[in-house]
Amino acid sequence: MDPQNLPRGFRAGATATGVKASGKPDLSILYSEVPCAAAAVMTQNRLKGAALYVTSEHLRDRRAQAVVINSGVANGCTGDQGMKDAREMARLTAEALHLRPDDVLVASTGIIGEFLPLEKIARGIREVAGSLSPDGGLDAAKGIMTTDTVPKVVSKEFDLDGGRATIWGMCKGAGMIHPRLATMLGFILTDAPIAESIARPVLLEAVRTTFNRLTVDGDMSPSDTVMLLANRMAGGPIIDRLDSAAGKRFQEALREVCGALAEKIARDGEGATKLIRIEVTGASDEEEAERIARGIATSNLVKTAIAGGDPNWGRIVSALGQHATVTDPNRAKVRLGDVLVYDDGVRAEYSERKAAEALAGNEVTIHVHLAEGKASARYLTCDFTEEYVKINADYHT
Amino acid sequence: MDPQNLPRGFRAGATATGVKASGKPDLSILYSEVPCAAAAVMTQNRLKGAALYVTSEHLRDRRAQAVVINSGVANGCTGDQGMKDAREMARLTAEALHLRPDDVLVASTGIIGEFLPLEKIARGIREVAGSLSPDGGLDAAKGIMTTDTVPKVVSKEFDLDGGRATIWGMCKGAGMIHPRLATMLGFILTDAPIAESIARPVLLEAVRTTFNRLTVDGDMSPSDTVMLLANRMAGGPIIDRLDSAAGKRFQEALREVCGALAEKIARDGEGATKLIRIEVTGASDEEEAERIARGIATSNLVKTAIAGGDPNWGRIVSALGQHATVTDPNRAKVRLGDVLVYDDGVRAEYSERKAAEALAGNEVTIHVHLAEGKASARYLTCDFTEEYVKINADYHT
Repeated sequence: MDPQNLPRGFRAGATATGVKASGKPDLSILYSEVPCAAAAVMTQNRLKGAALYVTSEHLRDRRAQAVVINSGVANGCTGDQGMKDAREMARLTAEALHLRPDDVLVASTGIIGEFLPLEKIARGIREVAGSLSPDGGLDAAKGIMTTDTVPKVVSKEFDLDGGRATIWGMCKGAGMIHPRLATMLGFILTDAPIAESIARPVLLEAVRTTFNRLTVDGDMSPSDTVMLLANRMAGGPIIDRLDSAAGKRFQEALREVCGALAEKIARDGEGATKLIRIEVTGASDEEEAERIARGIATSNLVKTAIAGGDPNWGRIVSALGQHATVTDPNRAKVRLGDVLVYDDGVRAEYSERKAAEALAGNEVTIHVHLAEGKASARYLTCDFTEEYVKINADYHT
Repeated sequence: MDPQNLPRGFRAGATATGVKASGKPDLSILYSEVPCAAAAVMTQNRLKGAALYVTSEHLRDRRAQAVVINSGVANGCTGDQGMKDAREMARLTAEALHLRPDDVLVASTGIIGEFLPLEKIARGIREVAGSLSPDGGLDAAKGIMTTDTVPKVVSKEFDLDGGRATIWGMCKGAGMIHPRLATMLGFILTDAPIAESIARPVLLEAVRTTFNRLTVDGDMSPSDTVMLLANRMAGGPIIDRLDSAAGKRFQEALREVCGALAEKIARDGEGATKLIRIEVTGASDEEEAERIARGIATSNLVKTAIAGGDPNWGRIVSALGQHATVTDPNRAKVRLGDVLVYDDGVRAEYSERKAAEALAGNEVTIHVHLAEGKASARYLTCDFTEEYVKINADYHT
């Protein structure tokens, strides 16, 4: 299916308000013809942007009908004025779309510490609200980009009792990417008949093994939010149990969409040339597997070695040893692609040429097998290049 | 005092064995004419180099008389052969110096996963053992360098009951620097009359607020070790209590030497152009202060901003929010040098020119004041430049 097409009953659009000096699109709206079951998962950073507080308030009834997102200014560290501005963004959007303000969710991404230029944003909201379209998904994805080099959209159709439903998602994020609960901005729309009562648990579960296992630079943003809006226009019986057949099908489809979006973020990490998949198997429990995978995924030394095409497995085993709490690194095996490079405490017999080849493409897999148990975890990250430093030393306030 | 002069009764030396392809010095020996009270603090990485196991064994009696250190090969991930090689290093050194093997401590630093070229090392040990000198401290410091650009030596004289004593220390480290218990290699020699019983507690306490509050890249090495050898040749009553006047004077002098060595490591961090001092005050307790200071010190985004001379305080407040567990980031103040840039949840009134000036020199101070309590912590790090990536993408196995 064309990822540009939104699920039934949704419309989207974007415009350039002038908040971004580049003149690129910086304001997007997602809208449903009918009210949706809605949920959001947010950053665990104790510093939170004003939009997150407003969105939380507006989600108390677990319903929403539109989302307004601006890029360029994160509206974080902006105190009472920031809260007023975020509320005003919701109010203006509601006014233009004839909704109640608390049916509008808000997100902001960009520089921390600056106030929203509300006049520009108000003009933009009115303009976008008047031009929303069922084909506007890609435009909306462009309107939320910051240092992203490509817009990130994923769509998936799947069978539900009595018909087909669609899940569509867009996200942004290239730096300041590190998960605890949620990370980056992600927006997921579906016409599946999801009950309010399961919108949040189903989203939490999908995020846990996708967006929450993704890091670019270890820095956790105060703006990170993933939202799910389900308008139920696919019809069919309402799904109100996660353990029903339909509930499981939806959970799996949602996990797949979130996973594909997370992969797009890792691939477009600031300065990245390679997507890195980290797979830890044979761990004592999933928490230990995840801790080790995250430790490897956040190691600057591992990521610079891969940028340099260097099969420096010693750095991988060292990161494993740094982050393990019960695992014995001397009983681990490490593979780069298919090449076994470390085996039970010492260097394996391997060809340097084959190990270098395993790092040569634009996708690299690091597989760490432990001798502790049966738990596993996957993590996504990217290599770490001089370009990352250049981007972030030059991204001036 | 000339940092090249060792305390009474110590001799040192180094040579180039050919382990380093560059032909630079790569084997150092520290030696005392008489047995010393000795202690070591080691990495918390669950992966440990063979030298660390051998040193631990040899320290069971809390005594030692010599240390042999090689650079270029870390002797880590080398299994049983690595253990044999590390023991052999101690045995060869003991033989050349007419000591018992278990009075020799061992350290190795360099590439992980390669075996020690023992023939070269044996030749080097014999050569250095025959040419040890009271003026050999600086040579020894050169022999332990890897990506360090300068040798790192500190010396301090201080009063003890009935005379003067000296503490001399050398260390190495520029990358893979991140503390838990200990970090990098550090060797501290003193002629002060320290009892075996307090050698370890006094070293632990000095390391806690110095080497343990230092990060270059967040990666914890499997070789990190700090050793203290006290030969008591300054004379005077044995110091066997930390809470005695002499015990406190020694503790303070040792802390000062460790602090000065840690600062040399941060200043010489791989690719670094600036030493960054992070000071957190007003915290609820020291653990929270340390956690926040470490969080800021390990933020790639904070460190690239400082490399770029950009007063991007939003990244500092975001790192604070990411790592705080009880602190409210909205009630914090952030200063760059003397310039207040963030105050109680919003941007402070400040001149961009003055904020940029605060980042212009080769030393930068970030001061974060919290409104929670009276605890504080300091941390040392360095800026993060493209050169770091270049060094670590090109440091091939």
